[in-house]
Amino acid sequence: MVSLIGGSGSAPAQDLVKLQANPANVIMPTITYDNQRYSALDQITPENAGRLQVAWSFSTGVLRGHEGGPLVLGDVMYVHTPFPNIVYALDLNNDGKILWKYEPKQDPNVIPIMCCDTVNRGVAYGDGKIFLHQADTGLVALDAKTGKVAWSVKTGDPGQGETGTSAPIVIKDKVYVGVSGGEFGVRGWFAAYSVADGRQVWRAFSVGPDKEVMIDPQKTTQLGKPIGADSSLKSWEGDQWKIGGGTTWGWHAYDPELNLIYYGTGNPSTWNPRQRPGDNKWSMTIFARDADTGMAKWVYQMTPHDEWDFDGVNEMILADQEINGRPRKLLVHFDRNGFAYTLDRINGELLVAEKYDPAVNWATKVDMDRNSPTYGRPLVVPKYSTAQNGEDTNTTGICPAALGTKDQQPAAYSPVTGLFYVPTNHVCMDYEPFRVAYTAGQPYVGATLSMYPPPGSSNMGNFIAWDARAGKIVWSLPEPFSVWSGALATKGGVVFYGTLEGYLKAVDASTGKELYRFKTPSGIIGNVISYEHGGRQYVAVLSGVGGWAGIGLAAGLTDPHAGLGAVGGYASLNNFTALGGTLTVFRLPAN
Amino acid sequence: MVSLIGGSGSAPAQDLVKLQANPANVIMPTITYDNQRYSALDQITPENAGRLQVAWSFSTGVLRGHEGGPLVLGDVMYVHTPFPNIVYALDLNNDGKILWKYEPKQDPNVIPIMCCDTVNRGVAYGDGKIFLHQADTGLVALDAKTGKVAWSVKTGDPGQGETGTSAPIVIKDKVYVGVSGGEFGVRGWFAAYSVADGRQVWRAFSVGPDKEVMIDPQKTTQLGKPIGADSSLKSWEGDQWKIGGGTTWGWHAYDPELNLIYYGTGNPSTWNPRQRPGDNKWSMTIFARDADTGMAKWVYQMTPHDEWDFDGVNEMILADQEINGRPRKLLVHFDRNGFAYTLDRINGELLVAEKYDPAVNWATKVDMDRNSPTYGRPLVVPKYSTAQNGEDTNTTGICPAALGTKDQQPAAYSPVTGLFYVPTNHVCMDYEPFRVAYTAGQPYVGATLSMYPPPGSSNMGNFIAWDARAGKIVWSLPEPFSVWSGALATKGGVVFYGTLEGYLKAVDASTGKELYRFKTPSGIIGNVISYEHGGRQYVAVLSGVGGWAGIGLAAGLTDPHAGLGAVGGYASLNNFTALGGTLTVFRLPAN
Ligand SMILES: O=C(O)c1cc(C(=O)O)c2c(n1)C(=O)C(=O)c1cc(C(=O)O)[nH]c1-2
Ligand SMILES: O=C(O)c1cc(C(=O)O)c2c(n1)C(=O)C(=O)c1cc(C(=O)O)[nH]c1-2
Repeated sequence: MVSLIGGSGSAPAQDLVKLQANPANVIMPTITYDNQRYSALDQITPENAGRLQVAWSFSTGVLRGHEGGPLVLGDVMYVHTPFPNIVYALDLNNDGKILWKYEPKQDPNVIPIMCCDTVNRGVAYGDGKIFLHQADTGLVALDAKTGKVAWSVKTGDPGQGETGTSAPIVIKDKVYVGVSGGEFGVRGWFAAYSVADGRQVWRAFSVGPDKEVMIDPQKTTQLGKPIGADSSLKSWEGDQWKIGGGTTWGWHAYDPELNLIYYGTGNPSTWNPRQRPGDNKWSMTIFARDADTGMAKWVYQMTPHDEWDFDGVNEMILADQEINGRPRKLLVHFDRNGFAYTLDRINGELLVAEKYDPAVNWATKVDMDRNSPTYGRPLVVPKYSTAQNGEDTNTTGICPAALGTKDQQPAAYSPVTGLFYVPTNHVCMDYEPFRVAYTAGQPYVGATLSMYPPPGSSNMGNFIAWDARAGKIVWSLPEPFSVWSGALATKGGVVFYGTLEGYLKAVDASTGKELYRFKTPSGIIGNVISYEHGGRQYVAVLSGVGGWAGIGLAAGLTDPHAGLGAVGGYASLNNFTALGGTLTVFRLPAN
Repeated sequence: MVSLIGGSGSAPAQDLVKLQANPANVIMPTITYDNQRYSALDQITPENAGRLQVAWSFSTGVLRGHEGGPLVLGDVMYVHTPFPNIVYALDLNNDGKILWKYEPKQDPNVIPIMCCDTVNRGVAYGDGKIFLHQADTGLVALDAKTGKVAWSVKTGDPGQGETGTSAPIVIKDKVYVGVSGGEFGVRGWFAAYSVADGRQVWRAFSVGPDKEVMIDPQKTTQLGKPIGADSSLKSWEGDQWKIGGGTTWGWHAYDPELNLIYYGTGNPSTWNPRQRPGDNKWSMTIFARDADTGMAKWVYQMTPHDEWDFDGVNEMILADQEINGRPRKLLVHFDRNGFAYTLDRINGELLVAEKYDPAVNWATKVDMDRNSPTYGRPLVVPKYSTAQNGEDTNTTGICPAALGTKDQQPAAYSPVTGLFYVPTNHVCMDYEPFRVAYTAGQPYVGATLSMYPPPGSSNMGNFIAWDARAGKIVWSLPEPFSVWSGALATKGGVVFYGTLEGYLKAVDASTGKELYRFKTPSGIIGNVISYEHGGRQYVAVLSGVGGWAGIGLAAGLTDPHAGLGAVGGYASLNNFTALGGTLTVFRLPAN
């Protein structure tokens, strides 16, 4: 099968758009370019999902947090691991026999430079190659058939705090990667490399001079208006932008028709807002860039002058829905800050912005009055403003916590139900900023946090169905812990997600009714996928507890304030699961 | 449930004999005192075994070789791990939620003193306590309800090469442990400690003066004859016995009626036979000892003056069968040396000794002529004698290899079929002894080995059914690799075992026909168990590749001669599985 697809001589553009549309395969970590995490397979239905069984399983040989999910291409499954970022090619005709294994040699000194566990969110396919973005920012192209290195480049410098955790995306003849390090004062960037040889084609910074941010003062717009000259520089004091964060460690979406690639930028550095007056553009921002040239078409900053570490990197889901009788090309984004945004993805027009957890309290709402000077901005509640309360003051009871109403765990969309299925956090925090000095490659955080469930709640997570047109929760399933796993919607009407205790759950897409649950070996922070093989629908997920929520377990931390404040909040996870790294594959019985 | 059993005030003797007979529970690593590895549960049958499903799974958070199996007592399952020897108590009413976790603090410097991976063969239950024998030879009693340490003693000294890998056994008011370190010149011993407080009650060495070996020149017999004075000392040159091996790292069996405990001793040190002329008694020996006093009732040395590392520690299976119309209390032992021995367990009379792999070639047979001067001894083929060929000569084509026709992986016996189910190795070797000097705590091996399948064979293992009365193979299933997992026989007529690639297999006890297979996350070297919970029969097994056969994977070795010669032979295991540590639990669907 592999031999029939890709190949250096073919036109990769055409291949990938077609390949990603074939539900038998999963050729990118987002499943499809639109990032809907929707599988058009329909053998598994609400009627039969209760009979799901484990078909086979595979240990990756690595512990700590396993994010992302495998790829499937014909008869081969590609599985990646956290540091040291092993990639396996497994034979689907032979219960996952290992066809090849690639294990990079990386300096383990990169581990302490990773803010939130040694995670990696997956590999991408294109042009007969598997692309891996390593912890040490190495970008490696592996021959999909043999695992041999086709080329390898270094995209960043861990010595400066730069690391790689996010998955690459391949579009036509380019492979794109972002960078991590917002907790190390890294100045974020997003870059395109040639699929053929790894040559850098362009690199767009999140903050800094217009040219380096690849924005056009006149043509790049925010909420319909040109952003003007030096939009980023003017929003920072002095040279702070040079260590200003806005890293790009989340997911990407692509619209082949508009030829736009979408992604978000993370928190401005440091976490102490008093050290960086201004809006800190373009941190916390959705970027829509021309996939070929890299130039930004539009931007939208969700959280100007962040005071809570509400990184804006969460995935952009591209869906076409009717709003007020008018078909719209939407971009739906569940931001860390607790608001779910519905925008027109052609021009960045803001259509809906509503809280997707009623506990969210740091802002009353997003100003939707087009004539208001604060149009499109969150209206901050002063008592939850860590900037107003100032340094060395503990601002308490902020909801959500720094890890947001949702973090990296991607939501799913079903065009059948028109609903979004969102794994959420239901967590609040205390946040005390303090002055911090910058040293290259060292943590540059400047805040002490603790996390806990909202008052009156015992659950730290919910799995919700969301109507992005109305901005309303349709149903909500409480979960004891944050749902840190990526969801999957399917044509069969079943939605899947994993839990931090380790359950893979199947629920009815319409009602949320639980249809099936299975306790996998370890907590799930991976993303569920579905594929077809030999005419049968399979569901697969990586378990392996970790990530920010599981950092206490993953790194063996016990001080409640450790792990950027997450350790205390998730301490009882120790009663449910232990470290692991296992792929579990499900299917219906043969008869 | 736990609250109903054990408890310090009760009479532990009575409890354990009764408890081990209840097939709902598994209170010892051998399942029952007779070491039959037989479960009297019968819901799973050849008719329905094909419908087995995974019920739940649990990652131990530890990689490398997972030997042994869990215990089950009422609603609680106890799972142990390789170094660092974590013990978990899991809630069977809650998909394995962690009730408590015990993690000893051990000096990791013990790891390089372990010859054959960082394995541990399990914990034992008695008197309301869970007994753990740690790698560093710590013997710890944990409160079964809370995991709190009741007491803890040190049984040996890793500085002298002593380590712990074998499982304890509890009989009445004592807990018994053996020691590892035959590759470090350790003088083996077997010791009894008080269940109540960890006080040592007796310690019997394998080699040395009669008193220390706890043998009686007149009353202790071999093949019906008193062994005479200084039987061990006379079989060694000079003080070599002081670093003479005979370690005791295997399984134990107990006959409550005879009040005898049975175990075997390992190889004499070094592996270079020229450095230790003589029979090297009582290495390579079955010991039958009074469980109370420790005195040896009878002994039988399978491989006098070992020249191949054919440790005699493999399990003793106690079964009652008729031979020539006469009911006999048998002890059946599948030795590393390739012979399966059937003895009368009352007095050690030798009844049958036959090869259980036709490839075995180092000896023509065991001399069964009671009047012969070599009665009971193997008749060695000179060309395979590494002692005769001498130092620095590579003796080639010896079958079996040093890891024997069977190693630690225990066989099972079904009283229903009267057959033994034996996981075997089908491997030969080259063996070149060389002179080696002893340094305390350092490897004391003195031989270079390589391993490979017998000429004309491509399979490195077989799973066989054995008739111990006739000394004949009844059926044999070829396996690509050694079967390093312990078997389980069940009343339902289904036999279970695991494979190094990771398959849990169920076969028909009568015919060997495969009924079910499931690919667990990693290679299986654990022992299958069965238990009942909520009225349903479960089957459980640890996967996690390693042990001697998997040492290449477990320790990341690639030189074919490394891992005492095992790395080369099992190199292709890398194509099938990766490290892991996962419990997988199976059951039939509810309807
Ligand atoms: O600012 C950054 O560069 C950066 C990087 C990462 C990352 O790469 O994992 C995370 C975060 N920030 C972050 O804020 C965050 O909540 C987070 C969660 C996780 C995770 O994998 O669970 N990573 C990250
Ligand atoms: O002589 C000894 O003390 C000793 C100890 C051990 C052990 O404790 O694991 C093994 C052996 N020998 C040995 O000969 C052997 O084949 C072996 C296999 C294994 C294993 O767990 O796979 N351990 C051991």
